[in-house]
This record gives sequence, structure tokens and C-alpha cells, in this order.
Amino acid sequence: MLEDKNQERTSLEKLGEFGLIEHLTKNFEIKHKSTIKGIGDDAAVFDHTDKTILTTDLLIEGVHFDLSYMPLKHLGYKAVMVNLSDVYAMNATAKQITVSLAVSNRFPLEALEELYAGIALAAKIFNVDLIGGDTTSSTSGMLISITAIGEAKEEEITYRSGAKANDLLVVSGDLGAAYMGLQVLDREKEVFKVNPNNQPDLSPYSYIVERQLKPEARKDIVELLKKLEVLPSAMIDISDGLSSEILHLCKSSKVGCNLFEEKIPLDPTVISACEEFNIDSTTIALSGGEDYELLFTIAQNDFDKIKGNPSLTVIGHMTDESEGAHLVTRGNTKIELTAQGWNSFKSND
Amino acid sequence: MLEDKNQERTSLEKLGEFGLIEHLTKNFEIKHKSTIKGIGDDAAVFDHTDKTILTTDLLIEGVHFDLSYMPLKHLGYKAVMVNLSDVYAMNATAKQITVSLAVSNRFPLEALEELYAGIALAAKIFNVDLIGGDTTSSTSGMLISITAIGEAKEEEITYRSGAKANDLLVVSGDLGAAYMGLQVLDREKEVFKVNPNNQPDLSPYSYIVERQLKPEARKDIVELLKKLEVLPSAMIDISDGLSSEILHLCKSSKVGCNLFEEKIPLDPTVISACEEFNIDSTTIALSGGEDYELLFTIAQNDFDKIKGNPSLTVIGHMTDESEGAHLVTRGNTKIELTAQGWNSFKSND
Repeated sequence: MLEDKNQERTSLEKLGEFGLIEHLTKNFEIKHKSTIKGIGDDAAVFDHTDKTILTTDLLIEGVHFDLSYMPLKHLGYKAVMVNLSDVYAMNATAKQITVSLAVSNRFPLEALEELYAGIALAAKIFNVDLIGGDTTSSTSGMLISITAIGEAKEEEITYRSGAKANDLLVVSGDLGAAYMGLQVLDREKEVFKVNPNNQPDLSPYSYIVERQLKPEARKDIVELLKKLEVLPSAMIDISDGLSSEILHLCKSSKVGCNLFEEKIPLDPTVISACEEFNIDSTTIALSGGEDYELLFTIAQNDFDKIKGNPSLTVIGHMTDESEGAHLVTRGNTKIELTAQGWNSFKSND
Repeated sequence: MLEDKNQERTSLEKLGEFGLIEHLTKNFEIKHKSTIKGIGDDAAVFDHTDKTILTTDLLIEGVHFDLSYMPLKHLGYKAVMVNLSDVYAMNATAKQITVSLAVSNRFPLEALEELYAGIALAAKIFNVDLIGGDTTSSTSGMLISITAIGEAKEEEITYRSGAKANDLLVVSGDLGAAYMGLQVLDREKEVFKVNPNNQPDLSPYSYIVERQLKPEARKDIVELLKKLEVLPSAMIDISDGLSSEILHLCKSSKVGCNLFEEKIPLDPTVISACEEFNIDSTTIALSGGEDYELLFTIAQNDFDKIKGNPSLTVIGHMTDESEGAHLVTRGNTKIELTAQGWNSFKSND
């Protein structure tokens, strides 16, 4: 929002593609023995003892992110998180990533250095090796394509398809904050357009803004579940909103679900922001998206192992497929769950 | 070039992201035992007995391809080839791919079906499983990000770094055709702009146009080398022009090189097109790009094994690093090799 017009600008043209990759990746270290060859050949080479998990995501300027309030370092960090979250959703350990980047000439080298600083921070904290990628120009804007690679023992991999009737439905963390953070940032952007000298006080919103700008993939939950000796019967990460993800679990596992509104974990900041914006907080939790929490099912027998853990909330239970998927409201009404998740192909998005 | 204005148009919005992926990938079969889980979960799962090879490339409309003469089916096929070529350059067997796609609303579903028909054809012929990807909207144009995954025994992997002084430098197929095909297509595009009723006769150029629109990754060369019991000391694929790739080999292997102009394999169509366009054919072979041939070095002892093979040409030999990398012209002049390879960040590209 507060772009520094006096920043240094080194044009990408001067470096060329190979020089650029070399420059941006020179400080990345290879940490895993399983990485045999990283950047610098036609392809990377690695060797996993267990099964390999692989996922890939595209992030596009103007569709998935808005650089007017997303600092590039945060964007780099978040782009890695979005991908690692999918690896953790398989109950796996993330090991390697590749990062491909397309940028128009409007970005100077210094902007890409910021972006890679965020990627490097994520790689360090989450202990993954950067092993490859591609860097090229685009005709407009910025695009990031990341592939994340992980490893897991076959018997520990959690698919979407393993949930059984009577399993408990559990979610990590709290929901809806990233979406409400986006609402606050969008509002401040509009204010800024009218009055560029206005310095917004975002401190009351720091939690929800941070959840939008700097989400954390739940590596810690995968580790916690191992420690608690809980193997989820099914797992998925929440990128498109709770209801959409529940329906994915139900469809893949051929089960139904009762989700209890009163159990949905919400941060107080989300509740107050929802009141301020006059939006229903349950709707936000169900459809908001970008929470990157883990949603999983466990056998009832495992309940004692997770009971009282502050990072985990039981929000419902699975049923026979014939019963369908429902939200049970605070008023004890059953409403059919529908996916209101984000659709990037919708007009006016 | 000859767009059918009456084609059917189904908007992407109607299907949404999940519906679109499901629709486009429903006819893809999993062929490899090593693919444990393909599309349909948070991540794919696979299990390689040998080492895993992984490479990724971005292709962007207006930078890497021009839809005014690139049929979408060919584009899909070529996008896979570009990536598989890097797997073969490691002397590996390609096994899996992921395909991520960003498209603006101007593309109807039928266009994406064409693109995926090309991807499916490539996957079938080259025996790779489509195991994942991402599909989203873009603010402008089309973008394809593919990751190709292969497998190779550790002792068979060919890096860029293994060439030794006195090794022979060998190239598969012939060079410069893809670039000259592009020149022909560019010229016809200009003619078409002036007179849309003009039906160009491309038949004299069919070889070079096909090399541009439908390149074939050299899986056959990897198989041939195995059959001939030749293990290259170093290998790279030719995507940016011969001179750029030779310099990569020299730099990684810390050697020099003598490349003999008279040995560079050129198709007669390339020579005649170069005469027609008044371009030097050696320059085109050195800097043209997009040939997707394999360039490798072998020990002199292996010469008898490849001698006379119509798919392979010895074009030079490696030297001590101190001697540098040179082109030895037909007139026996030594000219230092410089990388004139394509730089997507250059202005006016």
C-alpha cells in the first residue's frame, strides 16, 4: 500500500534468465540427504526411502493476490505455505520445493529479491530444499507456480477417502480469519485510493491481517498427531472454506456428516470483525477460504488422545452417506451443506 | 491462423475449477505401478525404486507461444515434450507429469479440450501418467506449467558436469529447423494480416514447421544409447541453441570445446529456408533454439559403438578448460563460442 518510490531498480534484462536464477537462488542451502542434485542441471534428482508426495499450485496476480497490499516477501512465504499445506494434508513430511516465476518487466531485480527472501524464510523454517524451477518474463503481472514434494510411510498417508461413519470430524486452529483479514485490507485499499495520506491503524486487526498475509502451514499438527499416536482416517487442508472441504471428504469417503455450528472455532477478532462488517461469522468459516488449517477424521476411540488439546477442535461426526452432509445450527436446525468455495472462473471475482 | 468462428463455446465459469479438472482429466489412465495416487486428493503419491528425476517449465502465451498459428492440440503436446526432453537429458525414463493451467475467460471449454487432447496424446506415446496439477483463471492469456518426473538408476544419471577433455561431442537429429519453422509461420502470419483470404502453401516447409509446432522429445535416443551400451559422460537437451548448451556443458564440466562447423547436422529444408530468408545456417543452428535434441559427450573408446548411426553426429570434442570453447569454421578459423540463446527478459522479444 505504501510503495517506496525511491527503491533501487535493477532491470531483469541485464541479468538474463540464467543469471537471474543464479542470483536469486545462490543463498539457498541443500539440507536433506535425499536431495541428490538441486538447481543447475536439466532436472533435479532426489531419493526418498518412503513414498513420494507431490502437489503443485499456481498463484496469479490479480486472481490470487493483490500486490497493492501484499508485500512481496509475504507473498513468497505464502506461496510456499499454500503448497506445503497440501503435503501436510497427506500426513507427510515436506522435503523439497521447486519455484517457477513469470514476471513482467515492471518488476526490478530488487522486487524479486524480496519475493525470494520470503521463499527462503519459508524453506528454512519448514526445512525444505529448493531444488529447481523456471524463471521467465510474462506479458503482464506476476505468476508463481510451486511444486512441493514430501515423503511419508505408505501406512501413514492420509487420503480424503478413508473417513467412516461415526468418525469424529476435527479441525486445527480457527477459521475465517484469513477471509476477514482480506476484507479489512480491501477496505483500507479503497480508503487509500481516496486519501493516500491516510495512515490506517490496522493494530486491532493484526491477527486476521496476518492470517491473510502470512499464513502458516500446519506442519506442527502433523507432528502433534504423531506424538499423540493418532492416525487420521482421512485428511484435507482447508483452502476453499470448511463446507467445500467437508463435502470433498464426504464424496471421497462415501459418508455423510453432521457439522455443529456451535463447535466451529472462531477467534474473537473474527467475531468482532464480522460484526463490524455485518457478516455472519458461520458463513465466513464455512466459505471464507485460505485458512490452511487441517480438517481430518479420527476413530471415536482416539477421542481421549486429542481431548482438551488447544490446537484441535471436534466440530462434528461422520454419518452414513444416505444421511447427507448437514450443518446443525445453534437453534438445532439441520441445513444441507453446500460448497460456496471460491471459484476463480466466476465473473467479477 | 484460420480460426473457426462457429466453434462451440461452453464457458468455464459453469463448470468451476473442480468440475473443469474432472472433465479434462477423466480419460487419462494410470499406466505405471509406481503411481500410487493420481489426481483427486491434496497431493499425488508415487514410489520409485530408483532415483527420482524432476523438472519443471513454464510456457506463457505471447512469450513462448503464439496461438495465432499454434493449434491448441499441438501446444499441449509440445508443452509436455519441452519437459520430457529435460528428463531424457538426464538419461532417465519419464514416468509422471503434472499440468497446471491458467486461462482467461476468452477460452471456452472446447479450447481446453483440444489442449488436453494434445497432452493426452503425448502422455500416451511417451508412456507417462498425468498425476496432478492446478487449473485457474488468469487475467490475460494462457499459461501452462508442467512438472515432469522420471526415474533412473543412480549410476546411469547423466549430469552436465561429467564431460572430460578429449571426450567426443555428439548431437542427435539435426539443428535449426524449429527456429526456421517459426520464421516461416511468422511471415505467413504477416501475410494473413494483410490478406486474410490468402491460403498459404506451407508444404515446402512441412518439416521445419512441424519441428516448431510438434517437436518430439528424444526418448528414442535414451533407449538407443542403452542398446548401444553407451553411457554419456555428460548430457543436456538443446532448448536454447547449440552454443548456449555447449557452454553449459563446458562450465559445469570445467572443460573447453572445439565444435566443427562442417559437422553440424542440418536438414536440407533448413539450408534452403536459410537461403530464402538470407540467414546464415550455422548461426541458426548455434542460436536458434527449440530443437529439443540431445547433446552429449562420450569417451573416445565409445566411438565405434555410435559410428555410422544416422541419428547421431559427432560434431566436436572437449578440450582442457584453458583452451576455451570455440567454433572451428569451414575455413579453419577458430571463433570463440558465445551464448546467443534466447533471453525472455530482453526488450522487444
